[in-house]
Amino acid sequence: MASENMLLPRTGIGIDVHAFAPDDDPQPLWLGGLFWEGEQGLSGHSDGDCVAHAAADALFSACGIGDLGTHFGTDRPDFAGASGVKLLGEAARIVREAGFEIGNVAVQFVANRPKFGPRREESQRVLSQAANAPVSVTATTSDGLGFTGRGEGISAVATALVYPAASPHPGPAKGAPHA
Amino acid sequence: MASENMLLPRTGIGIDVHAFAPDDDPQPLWLGGLFWEGEQGLSGHSDGDCVAHAAADALFSACGIGDLGTHFGTDRPDFAGASGVKLLGEAARIVREAGFEIGNVAVQFVANRPKFGPRREESQRVLSQAANAPVSVTATTSDGLGFTGRGEGISAVATALVYPAASPHPGPAKGAPHA
Amino acid sequence: MASENMLLPRTGIGIDVHAFAPDDDPQPLWLGGLFWEGEQGLSGHSDGDCVAHAAADALFSACGIGDLGTHFGTDRPDFAGASGVKLLGEAARIVREAGFEIGNVAVQFVANRPKFGPRREESQRVLSQAANAPVSVTATTSDGLGFTGRGEGISAVATALVYPAASPHPGPAKGAPHA
Repeated sequence: MASENMLLPRTGIGIDVHAFAPDDDPQPLWLGGLFWEGEQGLSGHSDGDCVAHAAADALFSACGIGDLGTHFGTDRPDFAGASGVKLLGEAARIVREAGFEIGNVAVQFVANRPKFGPRREESQRVLSQAANAPVSVTATTSDGLGFTGRGEGISAVATALVYPAASPHPGPAKGAPHA
Repeated sequence: MASENMLLPRTGIGIDVHAFAPDDDPQPLWLGGLFWEGEQGLSGHSDGDCVAHAAADALFSACGIGDLGTHFGTDRPDFAGASGVKLLGEAARIVREAGFEIGNVAVQFVANRPKFGPRREESQRVLSQAANAPVSVTATTSDGLGFTGRGEGISAVATALVYPAASPHPGPAKGAPHA
Repeated sequence: MASENMLLPRTGIGIDVHAFAPDDDPQPLWLGGLFWEGEQGLSGHSDGDCVAHAAADALFSACGIGDLGTHFGTDRPDFAGASGVKLLGEAARIVREAGFEIGNVAVQFVANRPKFGPRREESQRVLSQAANAPVSVTATTSDGLGFTGRGEGISAVATALVYPAASPHPGPAKGAPHA
């Protein structure tokens, strides 16, 4: 029998896609919690930060408590137009309130731009601080194929691990301080 | 050394895509283990339930024992045209027979419709019962981009955690009763 | 409190897409660490093995130490044009040098061809040997939709679990011998 001394994680998955705003409608680009000067932004009611949104959705998914629509729908007007960083922070709070510790979150986005490498660590710091848990962010392209290859938008996929705090020995994952 | 007292999980990934049947060929829509009245269905020999299929594939992937094609190919005529729920249940049985406990499965699908929120918990109950383990289901859109944005089909991505029952202290993950 | 006796995993995600080379430019196909005789290959400076590349990216992602571009960019000319198997092996070495044990990696690719089932176990052996940890590989199609459905390219998505070796009881995951 025996899951004494066990912290059994749960995995989650999150996907988010945002289209670039049309050229004749200049918008600021927010991605991975950062502002990208001189880059055309994403459309949407929020800041369109699909990296932060995918991370939040992966956390909700791991806990089985719904998704962005469940938690930031029309009944939360205070989050209408909120930044991705604010949404991720609130998602982490909701997840902890639901009885879960956060292990880590990992996000990869697919896009032709912006050039992410030089600011990757900055992005990870901002999102990890928002979630109060390690968030890793990476980037790739789709080799010219599909909507990301044609530069129509950005997609992001995230996974997350959470730990039910009701486990025999509740405790934070390494690097995930208590909320 | 020491992985005494350790339940070491394995992660898996599953992806499934189904096209909507053409408008002049009305089909029932089955998604997330549920029937969606009045919605155009997905094409395919099976019920096209890409949420259940992705969940099953993630379980197989975590165990390293193949995929839907491996287990429900032409040598299993009894599963030709089987429902997604039946396939997921059989996948979970195969996985346990191969010596793994199931931790949890998380699926997110990308589609313009159906409107999932009101029936999310119902879907989770049906799939969790089929797998005899927690299955979370969430939904998103692709902001009008790609084949999901054009309403041509539905894609689903799943992750799963399993535990080799050969671990020193085999035991079910929280919420995953013995089969 | 108490995460004594705990090996707390971290999850990672990796995505890779490569286009098929044009018909008038015959290339060898390398996928999942295997050569596929008589199949048109993928374009790119490397061998285009998106299965191996996604696996490597998932490992980096789980550790929060960047991505393929970070580690195999222009400052590593010795890896220009390297095979996917070589890149995965080097990724695993980098991950262990950074202080992580590898639990497992799971990859699924989406493509109309090649027919993967008969060589799945061979592919898993080659990639698991490269990573010195269990790598599972599965295949699916996108039901004729999107760039994979039109046969323009192959996409692969991977998840990985790693364990910080700084955990109280460092030890290899089952099947993941010490490097």
